[in-house]
Amino acid sequence: MESFKVHILGCGSALPTLRHEPSSQVVEIRGKLFMIDCGEGTQTQLRRSHLHFNKIGYVLISHLHGDHCFGLIGMISTFGMLGRTAPLHIFATAELEPMLNQQLAFFCSHLGYEVVFHTIDTTQKKVIYEDRSLTITTIPLEHRLPCCGFLFREKALLPHINKEMADFYQVPLSQYGNIKNGQDWVTSEGEVIANYRLVKAADAPRSYAYCSDTRYLPKLWRQIEGVSTLYHESTYLTEHIALAEKFYHSTAAQAAMVARDAHVGKLLLGHYSSRYDDEQVLLEEAQQVFNPSVLTNESDIIDV
Amino acid sequence: MESFKVHILGCGSALPTLRHEPSSQVVEIRGKLFMIDCGEGTQTQLRRSHLHFNKIGYVLISHLHGDHCFGLIGMISTFGMLGRTAPLHIFATAELEPMLNQQLAFFCSHLGYEVVFHTIDTTQKKVIYEDRSLTITTIPLEHRLPCCGFLFREKALLPHINKEMADFYQVPLSQYGNIKNGQDWVTSEGEVIANYRLVKAADAPRSYAYCSDTRYLPKLWRQIEGVSTLYHESTYLTEHIALAEKFYHSTAAQAAMVARDAHVGKLLLGHYSSRYDDEQVLLEEAQQVFNPSVLTNESDIIDV
Repeated sequence: MESFKVHILGCGSALPTLRHEPSSQVVEIRGKLFMIDCGEGTQTQLRRSHLHFNKIGYVLISHLHGDHCFGLIGMISTFGMLGRTAPLHIFATAELEPMLNQQLAFFCSHLGYEVVFHTIDTTQKKVIYEDRSLTITTIPLEHRLPCCGFLFREKALLPHINKEMADFYQVPLSQYGNIKNGQDWVTSEGEVIANYRLVKAADAPRSYAYCSDTRYLPKLWRQIEGVSTLYHESTYLTEHIALAEKFYHSTAAQAAMVARDAHVGKLLLGHYSSRYDDEQVLLEEAQQVFNPSVLTNESDIIDV
Repeated sequence: MESFKVHILGCGSALPTLRHEPSSQVVEIRGKLFMIDCGEGTQTQLRRSHLHFNKIGYVLISHLHGDHCFGLIGMISTFGMLGRTAPLHIFATAELEPMLNQQLAFFCSHLGYEVVFHTIDTTQKKVIYEDRSLTITTIPLEHRLPCCGFLFREKALLPHINKEMADFYQVPLSQYGNIKNGQDWVTSEGEVIANYRLVKAADAPRSYAYCSDTRYLPKLWRQIEGVSTLYHESTYLTEHIALAEKFYHSTAAQAAMVARDAHVGKLLLGHYSSRYDDEQVLLEEAQQVFNPSVLTNESDIIDV
């Protein structure tokens, strides 16, 4: 199966600690890398991950709080020093563009590649990226300022070749592509072998939803129903639910309620408040609601 | 003796590596903390140092390359979240002010303390800070854009009490301050004890010069003659002197020539090019010219 992974670069929240970096993830899908959020220090985490800098073509910023975007200018600058030539596409709300442009003009005046800014509307569920195998759609969230999540969805996959049948009918490798795409096969004796006999069911398309930061949205499940993997912020324990409400964040149990209601495959927790020395307590509260919950940690690589 | 120390938070150069953080130091003098430069990740290094965030009253930015200032907005923001109320004074060239103001307005609109911007003229040798025990003076340097160093100089220190004599003449502790400041002492019998008999020579005032980034300036020694400790950037080995000239940086040997010509107490090396896996070679080249040279490393605390 083609790769579809999430690399956790940072899973802390606003206050930096020595245990967690601010928010950043890289979604790796079929060799392409999409960064989500870019807190301070992301470029160092990226180096630690050994991911290929030049393969990052897209950076999606969920919202303009510093712990989700202060690492952007440093990373762009470093990409330039490393000789990048491929454009870098930044998706964020409109307010970032003039600030970024001012910084680029001053600090990166000799950048050898183009930074292409794409404005996103966090109030709409909208496809912001599409290629032949993937779509990325915004997920409206509710935070203290405009904020959205991102839904990565594989398009329907091609079926697998039924190797036994293909060998039996002496189908050459060069024809596998055509057969995956639905053609029948005509043997040297002129016998027509129906396509369905030569293939096995395709893998189910996978999907990944990233939801950070947001207050608990009881109907969020509708937008992400059945995704393979959900990342949902889980800043607080239930005992601090008043803080979650005040700051438009979620508890681990609320994240798990969204995961449960959406019938997702598994739930990734993150954006931990710095007040907890050990996130195990957050995990326990989530698992009571939705068992396939896991804690994310820096350097984790998670199969979607 | 009162404390006068340099805390090394980062000693790498423009390209971040996993071995070194970008430029930042904290000068600790009599309990006050002055930060010099603030590359990305400085706030994390500061946390690692266990220095008290609120004691940092001043941030001096030598020049506006990203590896010397990209950490500023994140640190300012974090100080705010931690409830700081004391003003923070930023010294930098004028171009930073509008960019910083724009970022502050957007990201730190509810900051509970004042950020006070002070424009520095990098072409002048000028006192930019003074209190009763210390002056800080700019040191004009030559880099690809306006850049200066900073000279921290203790004012003349008060003499020590000659404890033996003070006890002999039964001088009460409450009078030590007056005697340090030059008063004679009159005994209960009316005998006048001349001040010079009650004190011992003061410690020599100490001084610290920070010089980064700059091309080799053969006459720089005149501005820093006799300082106790000199930090001078040492980006390259002599074999890469052409790069040093091209990018307005210095070699370790050139840093050592400045130190030797200025008759400083010791030389701190830093701002190492990421091309060297082991900075020992830089140290060796410096020590051939000026033996009391040392490599700086993150987390080092150096007595001036």
